[in-house]
Amino acid sequence: MIFLDYASATPVSEAAKEAMAPYESAQFFNPSAPYLAAKNVRDDYERAKSDLAHLIGAKGDDLVVTSGATEANNLAFSALDLVESPTVLVLETDHASILNTAKKYPTELIRVDRTGLIDLEDFQNKLTRNVAFVSIALANNELGTIQPLAEVAQIIKRERMARLVAGDARPLYLHSDASQALNLVPISVARLGVDLLTLSAAKVYGPKGVGALYHGHNVKLAPIATGGGQESGLRSGTENVAGLVGFAKAAAEAKKHQTYNRKHYEKLRQVLKSELEQSEIAPLFLGNPKHQLANFCPVSFPGLDAERLIYLLEDDEIYLSTGAACAASKGEPSHVLKAIGLNSREIAGSLRISLGAENTEDDMRIAGQKIITAIKTELARK
Amino acid sequence: MIFLDYASATPVSEAAKEAMAPYESAQFFNPSAPYLAAKNVRDDYERAKSDLAHLIGAKGDDLVVTSGATEANNLAFSALDLVESPTVLVLETDHASILNTAKKYPTELIRVDRTGLIDLEDFQNKLTRNVAFVSIALANNELGTIQPLAEVAQIIKRERMARLVAGDARPLYLHSDASQALNLVPISVARLGVDLLTLSAAKVYGPKGVGALYHGHNVKLAPIATGGGQESGLRSGTENVAGLVGFAKAAAEAKKHQTYNRKHYEKLRQVLKSELEQSEIAPLFLGNPKHQLANFCPVSFPGLDAERLIYLLEDDEIYLSTGAACAASKGEPSHVLKAIGLNSREIAGSLRISLGAENTEDDMRIAGQKIITAIKTELARK
Repeated sequence: MIFLDYASATPVSEAAKEAMAPYESAQFFNPSAPYLAAKNVRDDYERAKSDLAHLIGAKGDDLVVTSGATEANNLAFSALDLVESPTVLVLETDHASILNTAKKYPTELIRVDRTGLIDLEDFQNKLTRNVAFVSIALANNELGTIQPLAEVAQIIKRERMARLVAGDARPLYLHSDASQALNLVPISVARLGVDLLTLSAAKVYGPKGVGALYHGHNVKLAPIATGGGQESGLRSGTENVAGLVGFAKAAAEAKKHQTYNRKHYEKLRQVLKSELEQSEIAPLFLGNPKHQLANFCPVSFPGLDAERLIYLLEDDEIYLSTGAACAASKGEPSHVLKAIGLNSREIAGSLRISLGAENTEDDMRIAGQKIITAIKTELARK
Repeated sequence: MIFLDYASATPVSEAAKEAMAPYESAQFFNPSAPYLAAKNVRDDYERAKSDLAHLIGAKGDDLVVTSGATEANNLAFSALDLVESPTVLVLETDHASILNTAKKYPTELIRVDRTGLIDLEDFQNKLTRNVAFVSIALANNELGTIQPLAEVAQIIKRERMARLVAGDARPLYLHSDASQALNLVPISVARLGVDLLTLSAAKVYGPKGVGALYHGHNVKLAPIATGGGQESGLRSGTENVAGLVGFAKAAAEAKKHQTYNRKHYEKLRQVLKSELEQSEIAPLFLGNPKHQLANFCPVSFPGLDAERLIYLLEDDEIYLSTGAACAASKGEPSHVLKAIGLNSREIAGSLRISLGAENTEDDMRIAGQKIITAIKTELARK
């Protein structure tokens, strides 16, 4: 099997599994229980939170642990609960959990260019006095395009200044979903200039069902689940200790190997690209070659039906997708590929290839050749 | 170690761990991905949901998988989103995730008697025409008292009829949190007459961070997390496949051994009670002896400081608590014990003892004797 869809899911790393195991067995205690054994679990939980926070230049108290990126994204929007008639700006290529949650508010979409990079001029034009919340994923989940978030933050800073001068107290928060980026991009919340940042364990070889939301001290969130008052009252429910410990471990491993992995994936991608260049139909590589997650290799073969390619490749045990799993499963054309201006032939022929831990150079050669063979089969059928 | 706080947390059973393992490794696929290997994971997920649903006499489609009981309880209240100015009735002994979520609405508390049983007369008096939502935990998490839910449902049915006759279209939903009950009480949503039922994996030897909400076809819920549209649009976020599979397995095991376990725990509890009867201070056993989870043995030694007992017993590696972990950790006297009319001396001297899979008869004798010794130590200190 050659798995080329790591953007949709990652297996849990051995290190993460090992870190989690004790909290499912001998140390299964509820961290709020009164005896020492449970207090030790509480300490381990807080330490894991602190470790995870440090990886993005934050403190443990700045994180709310959630059941995943979607919940974290939803919680981020709760910053608007105290803001009167807020307007929201979101990148048009953002994930469904951002776009669908933004629908609760008057929303404007920020345009991207053909490589998926934010159109900063469009952003500046749309950043009017009513805007209270801006959400821009650090790296896109279909293209891997990495946004210049620090530049966005500078523009926001200027707008905040202008509001201060004008005596306008309306807040302006910058949120970013870093789910896809965490694995390969060094993240510092201070350098990025974000007020809110979403993290996901499921994309960094941690367990599914765990995520976190970083929130700066200036942001007031509203709890999306009320109850026992866990997570400083922002997210009630017995803590998933094993989950957080596994997440922190997986994220630490990702950070540790980040430089090596970036180079490694760049090399693998180059091998794959060279193979695909041999195709009868010239591949159209998508995303921004300079600002792209090293493990992303989205590509279109215009005129082909990518879904048919996927089924053909499945027989060779090569697994890839046409786009975000949750969106693609609905059979609608990708809003991301539409946003970067692909025509319908280019969209229909698009594969989202994303590399991961188990891939080798040999895999790239084999996968490339099999993709080309599948394309030939498809062309012959026509 | 003798663990006597299974109501706060259970270890993950070997069977559940085994069932979960493949979905963290070889079958880690996103169930929404397009290739067959991922579709098989989708099938496994739906089968687990269906299996879990069958255990309570429901269908898979009737369940929304959540990150735990607290989220499920919060989601249950979303049934009120479409109801104009609803009033809510909740049992005064209910869990914080019910009581604190109910605070968003005008709420009346239903009284309980000294054993923790619902006061049906009080309930009937408070069931006015404005009430749209009634929440009554199937078994209380501090006393283990099991409520006569079918009787409650009968009263609700009559009120619904009265509304129908009066041409009053206001809905009336019955919700029950069955988190503690699932382990030892046979549950059929039809027999109980509930519209909404909360389940938790963390109390039946499944993983933490997984729960579910059953909802009848007449109930319209509002999503509490929007995004990719998973769980029929009611709970977005990539599915925690391992978590649900582990939950379904653990719940199935619980059901399979339910009759045996009930007898087993009753016997263990009897041994423990006999030991505690030897105490210098007469034990006041709490809860309803006829309608109580077999693994619950809440007890008060009036005049003693239960927290000091807990610390003394900790040295003997005997772990127990004074009440619900999330509530007890805040150092406030239990609202449950207040509700059943205990005085402050009785509350201060209360231990929540709850038995579980690893306990043996010998454990009960040892624990009983150690508790008595601890009481003696405390009395000598005074």
